[in-house]
Amino acid sequence: MVNTTGKCFSVTSFGSSHGKAIGAVIDGCPANLELSEEDIQKELNKRKPGTSNISTPRKESDHVQILSGIFKGKTDGTPLTGVVFNKDQHSQDYSKFKNTPRPGHGDYGWMCKYENYDYNGGGRGSGRITIGHVIGGAIAKKLLKEYGIEIIAHTKQIGNIKSREQNFNTIKKNIEKNAVRCGDLKAASKMEDLIISKKNENESIGGIVEIIANGVPAGIGEPAFGKLDGDLAKILMEIGSVKGVEIGKGFKVAEMTGSQNNDEYIIDKNKIKTTTNNAGGIIGGISNGMPIIIKTAVKPTPSISKTQTSVNLEKSENEEIIVKGRHDPCILPRITTVTESSVAIVIADHMIRSGFIPPNHL
Amino acid sequence: MVNTTGKCFSVTSFGSSHGKAIGAVIDGCPANLELSEEDIQKELNKRKPGTSNISTPRKESDHVQILSGIFKGKTDGTPLTGVVFNKDQHSQDYSKFKNTPRPGHGDYGWMCKYENYDYNGGGRGSGRITIGHVIGGAIAKKLLKEYGIEIIAHTKQIGNIKSREQNFNTIKKNIEKNAVRCGDLKAASKMEDLIISKKNENESIGGIVEIIANGVPAGIGEPAFGKLDGDLAKILMEIGSVKGVEIGKGFKVAEMTGSQNNDEYIIDKNKIKTTTNNAGGIIGGISNGMPIIIKTAVKPTPSISKTQTSVNLEKSENEEIIVKGRHDPCILPRITTVTESSVAIVIADHMIRSGFIPPNHL
Amino acid sequence: MVNTTGKCFSVTSFGSSHGKAIGAVIDGCPANLELSEEDIQKELNKRKPGTSNISTPRKESDHVQILSGIFKGKTDGTPLTGVVFNKDQHSQDYSKFKNTPRPGHGDYGWMCKYENYDYNGGGRGSGRITIGHVIGGAIAKKLLKEYGIEIIAHTKQIGNIKSREQNFNTIKKNIEKNAVRCGDLKAASKMEDLIISKKNENESIGGIVEIIANGVPAGIGEPAFGKLDGDLAKILMEIGSVKGVEIGKGFKVAEMTGSQNNDEYIIDKNKIKTTTNNAGGIIGGISNGMPIIIKTAVKPTPSISKTQTSVNLEKSENEEIIVKGRHDPCILPRITTVTESSVAIVIADHMIRSGFIPPNHL
Amino acid sequence: MVNTTGKCFSVTSFGSSHGKAIGAVIDGCPANLELSEEDIQKELNKRKPGTSNISTPRKESDHVQILSGIFKGKTDGTPLTGVVFNKDQHSQDYSKFKNTPRPGHGDYGWMCKYENYDYNGGGRGSGRITIGHVIGGAIAKKLLKEYGIEIIAHTKQIGNIKSREQNFNTIKKNIEKNAVRCGDLKAASKMEDLIISKKNENESIGGIVEIIANGVPAGIGEPAFGKLDGDLAKILMEIGSVKGVEIGKGFKVAEMTGSQNNDEYIIDKNKIKTTTNNAGGIIGGISNGMPIIIKTAVKPTPSISKTQTSVNLEKSENEEIIVKGRHDPCILPRITTVTESSVAIVIADHMIRSGFIPPNHL
Repeated sequence: MVNTTGKCFSVTSFGSSHGKAIGAVIDGCPANLELSEEDIQKELNKRKPGTSNISTPRKESDHVQILSGIFKGKTDGTPLTGVVFNKDQHSQDYSKFKNTPRPGHGDYGWMCKYENYDYNGGGRGSGRITIGHVIGGAIAKKLLKEYGIEIIAHTKQIGNIKSREQNFNTIKKNIEKNAVRCGDLKAASKMEDLIISKKNENESIGGIVEIIANGVPAGIGEPAFGKLDGDLAKILMEIGSVKGVEIGKGFKVAEMTGSQNNDEYIIDKNKIKTTTNNAGGIIGGISNGMPIIIKTAVKPTPSISKTQTSVNLEKSENEEIIVKGRHDPCILPRITTVTESSVAIVIADHMIRSGFIPPNHL
Repeated sequence: MVNTTGKCFSVTSFGSSHGKAIGAVIDGCPANLELSEEDIQKELNKRKPGTSNISTPRKESDHVQILSGIFKGKTDGTPLTGVVFNKDQHSQDYSKFKNTPRPGHGDYGWMCKYENYDYNGGGRGSGRITIGHVIGGAIAKKLLKEYGIEIIAHTKQIGNIKSREQNFNTIKKNIEKNAVRCGDLKAASKMEDLIISKKNENESIGGIVEIIANGVPAGIGEPAFGKLDGDLAKILMEIGSVKGVEIGKGFKVAEMTGSQNNDEYIIDKNKIKTTTNNAGGIIGGISNGMPIIIKTAVKPTPSISKTQTSVNLEKSENEEIIVKGRHDPCILPRITTVTESSVAIVIADHMIRSGFIPPNHL
Repeated sequence: MVNTTGKCFSVTSFGSSHGKAIGAVIDGCPANLELSEEDIQKELNKRKPGTSNISTPRKESDHVQILSGIFKGKTDGTPLTGVVFNKDQHSQDYSKFKNTPRPGHGDYGWMCKYENYDYNGGGRGSGRITIGHVIGGAIAKKLLKEYGIEIIAHTKQIGNIKSREQNFNTIKKNIEKNAVRCGDLKAASKMEDLIISKKNENESIGGIVEIIANGVPAGIGEPAFGKLDGDLAKILMEIGSVKGVEIGKGFKVAEMTGSQNNDEYIIDKNKIKTTTNNAGGIIGGISNGMPIIIKTAVKPTPSISKTQTSVNLEKSENEEIIVKGRHDPCILPRITTVTESSVAIVIADHMIRSGFIPPNHL
Repeated sequence: MVNTTGKCFSVTSFGSSHGKAIGAVIDGCPANLELSEEDIQKELNKRKPGTSNISTPRKESDHVQILSGIFKGKTDGTPLTGVVFNKDQHSQDYSKFKNTPRPGHGDYGWMCKYENYDYNGGGRGSGRITIGHVIGGAIAKKLLKEYGIEIIAHTKQIGNIKSREQNFNTIKKNIEKNAVRCGDLKAASKMEDLIISKKNENESIGGIVEIIANGVPAGIGEPAFGKLDGDLAKILMEIGSVKGVEIGKGFKVAEMTGSQNNDEYIIDKNKIKTTTNNAGGIIGGISNGMPIIIKTAVKPTPSISKTQTSVNLEKSENEEIIVKGRHDPCILPRITTVTESSVAIVIADHMIRSGFIPPNHL
């Protein structure tokens, strides 16, 4: 079940970049949630390529169909299946990588492991398979909304350009106003310029995505190997281009002292809060009622139109290659939705596991 | 099964800081591995407190007993159970925290979740429960050694003091020579001074641990939710004080371009290698045969002998507290073994899952 | 993951009787197995209704499409998805059961559990969802064949008509020659007559299916909760109409003594065998190299065209109902393939778990 | 995790017949359940040997200790560990079976699988390991009692002597009054005589255990591979000597027609019931609110003091053996508690999974 994530709310992902279809089966979503294809489509549209000049010019319609799990407009407690049939695929571009792994891509490990490796568009190693994440995440988000939980992801940094701190509502509003989905409009403009300059250099650039979950109650997450932060780190690190995950202050804790880092408790209008949120809403693996704050490091797109050295595995000799094709010079604008979806899946799972969202019964 | 980790090589952890015992059941270790209590004890001794002036003065003998799974000095394929009976516990120290969660500790979330919360020594939220990790990890390490895999963890940074880059063998040798388990002896000396100065200020300090796994073959790890980096991030983030996990370059990728970050392939003495190892040995969730390199951010010990504000949950009012007791001013020297164990558990699991280590059969 | 079965070779099933589609995602099938839609279709054809006068006259084309997991005619180690789009569904037949559960069907429990219950054709409680089992089983059977394992299921008894003992090859040949898939042609003819007479009485009739797996090596299955017989019993009992499962002598052991029941070991042509096979090839939860023999009790189809008493849940009053429609007077001929598939899934899973079939790696 | 059963309420079993200890870790039991060692001990006493003349004369004190999971007399939501240290073991009896598998025992498959097989007392293949089941079951039963669910197991048949039908309360009362734990006192007396006569013949005898669960609400169990009857069949078939499992009418359905087998619904004092309970309380994999009724076929104890043929695997030649030792001539009296425990574990798990028993949270 390695293509399945989640214990009570689970997502089983399938499909490859240039195969017939990509999709996901979602199991454990409680019955009686209103759900339509449109709910999923609007999330898929956010990760869809070809929507701006900083994204790949590939057009992928990515139209989702729900094959199961809905009765009279509502979930009926049985597995939900969402499928996107592949269309605008150009498999001829990839045959030259059949025996020559592209640097920065998973090709080599996959070739070693499976021998029969679908090299077209990266096969199942392609970022395109995160369509399954977004299908699952769209359902999770709809479910969580009923319980007052809202999750947003925004581009926090691209290259050396950093977004200034903004509050939740500002970020939520601003990310819809710019192509990089940055919460700070000034930084967004500079980020766009940087991406275009890198594109013109046949280069790509990395960045940082921040995800914030508001409204999560204190008490979700379980010791010692079912911790909320553990499950979040796992699902985010499993996104192809993510190389780091931080909760709250993250790596900054290395230089902090106990009194600087500890969040003190106070009563504020009969609610218990912490004065700071260095812990990012999770402590001892369990939520404490404060906003959950996560950062992920996203690497530069490995597909670049520059000559790189690789090895032809058939001939057992070094070979120079150029990865042509229509690639994103920066994947962050599109990956934000994937991280948002991933976090939603984990939180939905833990909300059910901890009894805050009742599972199916009388 | 939230206290269980691993699919084929699994560890089920139990026990609490001041309860009768702490231990772990290890399931799926192949039969015919020579194993003694001494193999586990020597790893436990590394995380044992009270061994130097930079650690807590608490003496905990932490003597392990194997209750099951060994026949004639070898594993017999049945579950291995290791137990440490608790001894030097001072439960009277903790009753004042019964209703008042300690800042920086998991108390508040645990109180919310379980109501009947064992506040003595942090109960099951205590760092002491990582004894279970080390029992599991000691067995995993012994098993992996048979397959040429070696894992070491070392203190990379404490506060603003950073270890210089060292090669694997130097690190391996040096960590046994200093109390902080740092691979760079000069840095180690400064780190010790910093820890002692923080201790004298009634403070604590954070840092960074790096874990290196050598000898892992290309081809372990599975798409899309069974990825090797995902499982590593999860188990490390589940260690109480860890707030960030990086693979390879980690957060540095944010400022890198594609051509800077991509690792190029070459043939070197008939073996395929990458010229750089920015990916940290894992790409697309699957190992590529290069050393696996991981960093974790460890927060400063939350128990500090300073006045802090908290809330008395019974009285519903703010309350000042001081967390006295015998605490580590810096947890890194002892946590290195826990991270090493955690990584070993995940790699042993994936080695079996990918068929490199055969499971039990004729 | 309640719609998923299997640990290393796993099947995730989705869909409902009258929804858009029914299918399954198969995860963990090793790469490099030749596989086509035809391999699955020929198994589906065996469970397809409308093929003889003893089956429902409903015509269901049940044409399978593979959406993922195949590259160049072979599995590539990624999830295989098989889908059958529903066609010949008459949903108007079922609206009268919206609030009135049909006796012998799962309706009532499902209504209690999910509230929003798809009553059309029994929704996901329909026998039609075993299409997912057959998709998974067809792949498992193809895989097992490569390792010399063959599984057949045959109708052992219908009503009081019992098949005489036959050897494996005779059964294999005979089941293709009669509509009830019975291994004894004489009994088959009587069974057909009985089924038709029950059909004419607006009745249905139960029976017993026997499944035999030949070629399974000694040493698959795991203690104490991963036993081979346990997993077989589970997957078979999960087929809608199955009410009993026996391994080997089954319930006959109640009246046997130790010396009658124990299978003695002998060496036969350098191979270790047992003189009898009362254990049905599994002892202590682990295969012993003898043929695996299982029986399942299949209840009479609950849909009968007779007046039955039920309760209108909306009106809270008793209500008489007749379940019209085109139903099988005896489900055994079609269920044999489902039991065969189910057993194949479990054995494939355990062959991988025990290392007899290598998982994906270099 | 093959020695673990259950998804939300899970039991991890460890230990072997003649090793240091046998025990279980129970994960997922909600906090705040009053629980003492005595609660577990009284269940263990029921399966303890040496309590009557129809059982083995071996005396095993089987004293349980709880190592973790209790705080102030109540569960605290963390893993519960129960351990019994082995005592009255005579390992010298077994060395002659080192290379010669005992007929009817799991020895041969285990030897094939693990090579390093603990042959003393059957190692982990021994019935003694069901101590772990009983520890888990005792906790499950205590938990279920709080929710009005009561489970009893009784000896329904031994050899050809059958217990007459009795109601739940009579069975519950009578099983405490006779050594075979039969619900019918007249039959019990005949059963005891039969067992003693078989013992005098150096033989053993099989039988049938029936388990009844009262008070289970409608709506527990999940499609399609998380069905309640599937999980019950699995856990019962995993008990060493069980060779068959039936729910409700079981194998009798083979000869029944639809109108004979279907249970009709009626309203009785504002509650929905069925007029008959042929389904045994589970239909479509989900409980329907009627009593759950299960039967298991238990084979005659394989250890008999008669000469049997086996194979010396080292010498590769046939060898006659006699299994001396102090064995139960009939295991049913002691196994009833194990079946009761197993059913309790599954029902507790599904009660939590279906939300009838809330998991741990605020």
